[in-house]
Order: sequence, then C-alpha cells, then structure tokens
Amino acid sequence: MVNSLLSCSVRGLLPLLLIFLGGLSVPAIAGNVILIIGDGMDDSQITIARNYLVGSRSKLLVDKLPLRSAVQVLTVDEDNPQQPLYVADSANSATSIATGAITSPGRIGTTAASDKDLINLVELVKQHSIKVGLVTTASITDATPASFYAHVNDRGCENPSAMVDFEKYAGLIVDCSQDLKANGGLGSISEQLIISGVDVALGGGMNHFTPDAEGSTLSVLALAKEAGYTVIENADQLAGNHGGKLLGLFSPSTMPVRWYGEDGRTAEKPKTSFMNLFHPMLGSVTYPEPMICEDNPDYAGMPSLASMSEVALAELTNDAQTPFFLMIESASIDKQAHERKACGSIGELQQLDEALAVALKFADTNPDTLILVTADHGHAAQILSERTIYDVLDLPIHSPGQVARITTPEGAVMTVNYATNNFVSEEHTGVNVPLLSNSVGVGKIPGMITQPEIFNIIKDYLID
Amino acid sequence: MVNSLLSCSVRGLLPLLLIFLGGLSVPAIAGNVILIIGDGMDDSQITIARNYLVGSRSKLLVDKLPLRSAVQVLTVDEDNPQQPLYVADSANSATSIATGAITSPGRIGTTAASDKDLINLVELVKQHSIKVGLVTTASITDATPASFYAHVNDRGCENPSAMVDFEKYAGLIVDCSQDLKANGGLGSISEQLIISGVDVALGGGMNHFTPDAEGSTLSVLALAKEAGYTVIENADQLAGNHGGKLLGLFSPSTMPVRWYGEDGRTAEKPKTSFMNLFHPMLGSVTYPEPMICEDNPDYAGMPSLASMSEVALAELTNDAQTPFFLMIESASIDKQAHERKACGSIGELQQLDEALAVALKFADTNPDTLILVTADHGHAAQILSERTIYDVLDLPIHSPGQVARITTPEGAVMTVNYATNNFVSEEHTGVNVPLLSNSVGVGKIPGMITQPEIFNIIKDYLID
Repeated sequence: MVNSLLSCSVRGLLPLLLIFLGGLSVPAIAGNVILIIGDGMDDSQITIARNYLVGSRSKLLVDKLPLRSAVQVLTVDEDNPQQPLYVADSANSATSIATGAITSPGRIGTTAASDKDLINLVELVKQHSIKVGLVTTASITDATPASFYAHVNDRGCENPSAMVDFEKYAGLIVDCSQDLKANGGLGSISEQLIISGVDVALGGGMNHFTPDAEGSTLSVLALAKEAGYTVIENADQLAGNHGGKLLGLFSPSTMPVRWYGEDGRTAEKPKTSFMNLFHPMLGSVTYPEPMICEDNPDYAGMPSLASMSEVALAELTNDAQTPFFLMIESASIDKQAHERKACGSIGELQQLDEALAVALKFADTNPDTLILVTADHGHAAQILSERTIYDVLDLPIHSPGQVARITTPEGAVMTVNYATNNFVSEEHTGVNVPLLSNSVGVGKIPGMITQPEIFNIIKDYLID
Repeated sequence: MVNSLLSCSVRGLLPLLLIFLGGLSVPAIAGNVILIIGDGMDDSQITIARNYLVGSRSKLLVDKLPLRSAVQVLTVDEDNPQQPLYVADSANSATSIATGAITSPGRIGTTAASDKDLINLVELVKQHSIKVGLVTTASITDATPASFYAHVNDRGCENPSAMVDFEKYAGLIVDCSQDLKANGGLGSISEQLIISGVDVALGGGMNHFTPDAEGSTLSVLALAKEAGYTVIENADQLAGNHGGKLLGLFSPSTMPVRWYGEDGRTAEKPKTSFMNLFHPMLGSVTYPEPMICEDNPDYAGMPSLASMSEVALAELTNDAQTPFFLMIESASIDKQAHERKACGSIGELQQLDEALAVALKFADTNPDTLILVTADHGHAAQILSERTIYDVLDLPIHSPGQVARITTPEGAVMTVNYATNNFVSEEHTGVNVPLLSNSVGVGKIPGMITQPEIFNIIKDYLID
C-alpha cells in the first residue's frame, strides 16, 4: 500500500521531475531515421522504372538524392558459416540491416547454424524511448519488416499455424519448432510483433493474425488489441490521428500492386517457327507484342505506401520530443520481378518514390531527419535492346528467358528480360545495391559500405 | 626577309617573353583529368570481380574512391533521333562522354541520322595546349578511344581497307563511303588518329595501321612516323622516356586478356537428362563443373594496362607546366562478357584497378588531378545463387542461358549467368552505370548525372 501511494505520487510528478532533471543536464535530442527499402531494387529496377515513369533523360526523386553510396550484400552458408554465399534473400539481408550481423538465407534475426538471437534495431532503440514504425506493402510479418523485430530460424514461420512442418508452397517445408513458446522460443513472427513494442505497423498480412496464438484461445489479432494496438483494416480507417499503438492490416497477405501488364500479361517466351526445331539458327522468331502498364483492379481501395508513411509519421511524432525510427518497405519490386511482371515492379517503385517524397517533406520541417534509401539484394530483370543487337543478321536470335516489351510514355519500346531460371519464379542476383541519403547523410557515409554497416549508421544516428 | 629576321628574333625571345607576360598575368594552370573507362563495367561486373579478386567482404581500389555517382546512359534511334533507345553500344556511349551529345549505336563522334561531326574532347583541349593520351586494351581504333578523336558514321571503319562495304563479321556489313577523303571526309579511324594531335596512344590494333592510307602508297603506320610519332610494338620498347608523340601498338587487334577459365572453358549450358525432353520439370540437370581462373598464355609479353598508363603519364608530364587529359580504357570487361568468359572480364577489371592505382599515385604528388572512373554501358553477366534457390524442390531448375561456376579464392563457388540471347555473343544491358571520383571530384558531381554531363565535367575542369 505504501509502495502504491508512493508510486502514484511519483508517477504524477514524473513529467515535471524529468523536465527539471533535463534542465540540469539536457540530453541531446537525437534525430530521426527514415529507412526506405526497395526490395530487390537494384540499379536495373531503378532504370526500368525511370524509363517508364519519367523518361530516360529525367530523374526519379530517388535519383536526385544528394548522397550516393553502394552496398556489399553479405550472406553466409547455413552449413558452413565461415563460407560466403554470393546471393542473398530478403531475410538474411534485412537481418544484416536490422542487426549488423551476417547470416544465412531464410533466417530472421538469428545466427547461421548456431541459431542465436541477434539484438535488432527495435530492441535497441526501445531501450532509449525511441519510437518505431514499420510500413510495408508486403505482410507486416514478411522477411524484411520481420527482421527488425523478430527472431526465428525461418522466414516462413509467420504465424502460429506455420511453425511446425509447414508447407509454404510447392513442397517447400519450413519448421521453427525450436521457436515455439512451448520450447522456450518467442513464437511465430506475428506473435513476436505484438510483444515487440513497435508503435506503428502498417501493411498486409491479416492472415497471419487470425490464427489462435500458441497456447491461447485468442487470435493473435485479439492479443494485439489486448496489448493496446488500435487495429485498422482499410484505407478509410487509416485517416486521422489514432494515438497509442497502431496496427494496420490492409490485405490478407501481400498488398496488391498498383499496376500490371496490359490485360494482365507478364513477360513471355519469344516464339520460334517450325524450322527452329532443327537448329537454333533456323527459322524465325516472333517476340511478344509490346504492352503498356495498366491499373491493377485488385489495387482499388488499398492505401498507398505514401499514405501509410504519412500516417506513420503523424503517429510517431505525436510526442515531438521523442525521436523515431521508421522503416518503409516497397516490397513488391521483388515479388513482381519473381513473377516476371515488369509493370508491377515499376508501379511499386513509383510507390517508393512517392513515399520518399513524404519523407523528404517531413525532413523539410524536421531537418535532423536522416533519410536512407536502399535495396536488400539484386534481382533478375535486365533491360535488353529492343530486338537483339544482331537483328541485321536476320537470324532467330532471342533471349533464352522471357521478355516483356513495354511501350513507355516517351513512345519507345523497353525490353525487360527475365532469364535466371526456367521455373515459375525468377531468382535474386548478387550485385551490390544502391544506398542513397538526404543531405543529413553527406559526410557520414562513404562511397561503399557493407550491408551490416547500415545498421551502425542508423544506430549511431539514433542513439550515440 | 624582314619578316624572317623578325620572326627569328622573336622566336628566340619567346620563352623569356612568355615568362615575363606570365609574371604580369599568371594564367591559372588548370588541373589534369584522368578518365578511366571500364567497358561494360556495370555493378554486376564489379561485384563479380570483387568476389574473386579480394573476397566479398573486402573492397577493390575502385570501391574505395570517396565520391560515387551514377550515370544515365542515353541513346537515340538512328531512324528517329527524337526517340530514345534503352540500350547503348560503346560507340554512342563513348561519343556521349567525348562530345557531350547523344547519338545512335555504332556512331563515332557524329550525330544520329544527320551525320554531322561533333566537336570532341581532343579537338577542344588541343585548342588550349592541353596534352592528350589514350590508353586501351582494345585496338586504339576501337569505338571507345576512337570517339575521343574521330568522326565516322560507323565504328567498324577502323582502317582504310574497311571503309566501303566492309564485312566486319558474319555478314555484318559496314560502310563509311561518305567519310572517304575522296568524298570530302576525314578518312578511316586510324588515319584520323594520326592527324588528331593525340600525344600518346597505346593499345592494340596494329592491323588497322598496316593498310595503305587512302590515296597514298604509304601505310597509315608510315604516315604516323612521318607525322612525328615514335612507334613501339612490344613491352620492352614501352619502357623509358620517349619524348615527342608516341604510338604503341602491342597486338594486331584487341590485346589478349590476362586470364581465362580453367582449360580455356567459358560459361556452359546446364545439361538436362533424357526425361527432360518430355517436360521441363522432368528428369535431372547437371550444372557445369566449377572452375578457377587461369593465366591466359596469349597474354605473355603484353604490357599491362597499368604499365601503359604509367608510361603515358610520364610522356604527358615531360613538360610539367602543361596540363593533360588521359583516357584509360579496360576494354575487355565487355569483350569477354560478350564471349561469356567471366575469368577474362575479372582479369580485365583487375587491370583497371591496377591502372587506377597508378593514377592515384600520380595524383598523390599532383593533387590537382581529377580522376574519374566510369563504365560506358551495362552488360549481360549476373551473379546467381550457387544452384537455384529452389534447389530443395529437386526439380531440374536451371538458367535458360549459360553459366560459369567459378571457385573463388575464398573457397566458395560463384555462379555467373549469361542469358541475354541464344547467339554466339551476349548483349549489352540498359542499366545505369557507376561513376566514381577521387577527392578532387567531391562537391563537383551530384549523385546522378547523364552520360553527356561527364563531357562537361571534364571540359570544365580542364579549360574553364
């Protein structure tokens, strides 16, 4: 009882006390960090989007940022963590950014082979009363956002129903038994989100919140509400100031993208004539017809990445004295490239550029805001000459992969090639990726860094 | 006679007079520019070379340069110069750098469609007594170096025998009749070199100097000597100070590259089993065996790009008061990528890095030297996951193109994919390319520029 009374008195006086103590020794109010990740957004993807969105001679907003660096993406082999792999996935690369460590593909915030939890940015900044927002066009439990708040041995374990021998797709089994709460773990990714302390989480992935939490008769969503989250589910609910913690889940899994190819077309294989059966240089080849990009009807009613970013910024700055870390992901540059959908990737990159505009506008009035834009890994798409450069030879020369011929608003045809494999889904590539920053980053970031060093830049700016 | 006497007297006094006048109004001694071009050296090529040469976590010298920018490569359609093309060749992209203009593929220093001569850097700086050196591992008459001194409607017109209906290869006919001297033109590229005023020209391409010059019984080589060039033909002759103008031609055409694949192997098609004939997902696939990079015996006795660059710098600085422009090209990053020879490209990129070391060492004692490193266009090679990322599915998934699996010195296997066409030679890509600079460029170059703006940066630094 005495304790309780004392506690009440102190609690009431605390703000005044803090102001007083602050007056004696003012702690530097650190700046904010907005990290914008284009998933799979290598220089090819940016050039493809630039050519379509503003024309080859003009610049996207991301192109105009004053500081450019490049990032070495680092990955290790799960079976031999001393050995590098030369191509990353979004789990291990986002883990690099979120923890400063290098791990193996598929891992979220855990070490390769030894499966130890790595301290992530959310855990670190929460110790310093720094607010955290995560915004994505993927599920909020997808690899990139998950790496900032969760620890699990496989990115597929996004909800309590996907923890043990779960078939993610086409026979691909994931298992995170060791991460079950029953086994001393932290549970699935969605369960970890709601105990992470993340202040604002906006994206897709309702499917990962409807299953019952492990050892509970309540869904993860119900537990999120119990934990103080306001849950919203559509663009109308997004508007306005919500106060407190906010969880927005605007689609069952990945949010639909803005654009698709004309009549829903993707890249297609060039078609060869009968004689080509006898020798690759006999007969003729017919390339796919050019197409424009069209509105994807499934996108109707979705909040844009920019509008989610705007709301996140508003929520995070309710208390202007508290700095924040906001991660914004344009996820489907990657996801659409896997599916050979150039228009989908272009529309997603447009969303990223719009979100960057929101961030830059915020930084105009909050000049201590460090804005970083980067990609997690490279991807399949390449721009090829419209027809082959050996066209004059009149031979059936063509990409061995699949091509989308896109008529751009400047009236030319841009050929996008996807040729990393013969399966239903293209592969990532191992190219170094861009890192750009607003003027706040000038002088802080050298011309090339490793991906884990992005973690240090963010941490140092927020905390040190 | 009076004139002659006066002329003699003045001539003798001229150096003293100049010193005197200089004392009255000292003209600013402009700095030097060293432009290093990696042909086809996009970020994929740099990452491939980094992984092999220094390991994925370490940095090449080029990675360590303090300023990074990116370059929009711009090309127009010969038949409709208002229309962009999204993929360049080395002729039109080097013309952008050398003249500040945008032209169509294959053109050297001339406008698309209208075939007008564009003023190039050599012509411009020669008006200001600035010395010029060109160093390349290609023929000195190849598209990249040629764009700095020549004007011709097709890059294939490298010598007097290749001007009219010349079959470059495999039925590819080039014709530069309008550039014949007899038709009021400037003649072939090699003929234009020797009247260009270039002070030092080192590379391959002797074949383009042995034919008789147009309308002459003398070879282009003989005319070069008449024009004051010391001609050297091997690495031994390269050593020492030559004085005057220097032409080094160390091989008949492109200089042999340093490395090739183990036992001369290139990238290869993955092999599928019999059952795969019936459906792409039936049967099994065998990937090419891993290989290391080996010394190419043909390279023996060749001067390195670094040693050529060193000699060029020495020759250009015989008169320390005269600033210079030196272009150094590592040409076969591109040429070896066309042939799907990853080791060849890696060795060439190593040569570029060594030449950069020479340039940086020079700049240490000549701090007004602006060093720029860039590429002219993107290329085919991509780093793929070692085996497909869908390996667990046990399906015959493979690149539809050709792959080289290279065992790196750090003990891992790096898979390089070439899949832009099904012909004997791969294609360029349309990705934006890197531009890097030493500290002299910091503050002078924004985060992204167009390729023609490189011309302005060089011109402004040398002249303005």
